Amino acid sequence: METILSTKNDRVKQWKKLQTKKGREKSGTYLIEGYHLLDEALKNQATLLAVIISEENQSNKLLLNEDIPQFMISTEIAKQLSETETSQGIFAVIKMVSLTKENLDLTKPYLFLDNVQDPGNVGTMIRTADAAGFGGIVLGKGSVDLYNSKVLRSMQGSHFHLPIFQEDLTDWFALFKEHQIPVYGTELNEAAASYQTISPMDRFALVMGNEGNGMSESLLKATTKNLYIPIAGQAESLNVAVAAGILMFSLKR
Amino acid sequence: METILSTKNDRVKQWKKLQTKKGREKSGTYLIEGYHLLDEALKNQATLLAVIISEENQSNKLLLNEDIPQFMISTEIAKQLSETETSQGIFAVIKMVSLTKENLDLTKPYLFLDNVQDPGNVGTMIRTADAAGFGGIVLGKGSVDLYNSKVLRSMQGSHFHLPIFQEDLTDWFALFKEHQIPVYGTELNEAAASYQTISPMDRFALVMGNEGNGMSESLLKATTKNLYIPIAGQAESLNVAVAAGILMFSLKR
Repeated sequence: METILSTKNDRVKQWKKLQTKKGREKSGTYLIEGYHLLDEALKNQATLLAVIISEENQSNKLLLNEDIPQFMISTEIAKQLSETETSQGIFAVIKMVSLTKENLDLTKPYLFLDNVQDPGNVGTMIRTADAAGFGGIVLGKGSVDLYNSKVLRSMQGSHFHLPIFQEDLTDWFALFKEHQIPVYGTELNEAAASYQTISPMDRFALVMGNEGNGMSESLLKATTKNLYIPIAGQAESLNVAVAAGILMFSLKR
Repeated sequence: METILSTKNDRVKQWKKLQTKKGREKSGTYLIEGYHLLDEALKNQATLLAVIISEENQSNKLLLNEDIPQFMISTEIAKQLSETETSQGIFAVIKMVSLTKENLDLTKPYLFLDNVQDPGNVGTMIRTADAAGFGGIVLGKGSVDLYNSKVLRSMQGSHFHLPIFQEDLTDWFALFKEHQIPVYGTELNEAAASYQTISPMDRFALVMGNEGNGMSESLLKATTKNLYIPIAGQAESLNVAVAAGILMFSLKR
């Protein structure tokens, strides 16, 4: 195992670039942090390009394939790589998977996110879609990057379980229309239909919108129907990830 | 309006003490931040003991009752009082409300939280209970303090809408038993009953447990029935606030 102690080492510089979307896109790789995500990556046959362990962790022997390059780094470097408050001092560089629409499983429901910006919300919704047995997720324009460290943390490995596209939702609306699968928008508007009027079904797409402004006007007009969750108390709205959870579990058969 | 420019001013010292649970309990007051919470406090007849405005905000004229003392503070003091990344530079000191079990509205459902520690989760669950039309909430032992700044931020003012107790849940289990109202526990265990087997109802309590360890063993044994949410995909679990949302909206008639 190679030991790296200088924060100016070239590999360290490359790894730090993965903290930005630009750096991730240029290299086609991203950084995960912590034992749980590393475990999920290994279990789900992700391509690990490097496993990076802080010197504080050196007593923790990992049972890794010897083909995966391993690096021991100083506590200072680990601090610079970490984006959590309580770091476990373990990281891995993972190769992004390229997806095409060709092998889609359209027998299951999909979650579409339109301009959702909070990484915790996006990660939590992906984790919930995974738990609800959805077929995939599409992050539309304006949504936070899938490989943002906070998104990765709240997804808890769900991106290893189901395909997640980062594409224009207009194309996906067209695709679902072509296959005659309903696309349900959401809006905070009692003129929309209550979600309780929709019987559970196998195939549909659910669209969640921006935390403050909801879905874009043009997408709202292109849906099969727009739904809302009736509010019984005095709260003005629900957190978008909670609303998505209620809708996903209620709409899916 | 009094102007305070020194970070060592006695009032400033008192306000900063409200960032700790000890300081809040000693004074019987807490600090809110931002226009939305101030607006909710005013709309809901909370007792405002002070409104504190950063000098950067001085052009913003607030229409406040003249009986409420107002203070203009320096940007530096505002920075010290703020617990958000993007502060709006406005704060208020609010008097805590003391609650008794005497005037409880037991015609509505209640949410009980057992040792839930993440402030964002607790705040979001309270906001969801408010939206679902619940009658009240009890934060049991080990749960994060209600007046923690992050709880206040995610509640978005819901603590002004419904009573929130910080008491031992054992007493509340006894009270609900006495009134023959079912108490539903939750556990991540397929031996529990699926929530879908429970018909929606008016009166019940729902108990959510700790993020990592779930509900305490002793409380699990004292419930009417324990429920779980069947997981269809590969995610190991749901975020506790999402799970609470699914359950609250599904169980309430």
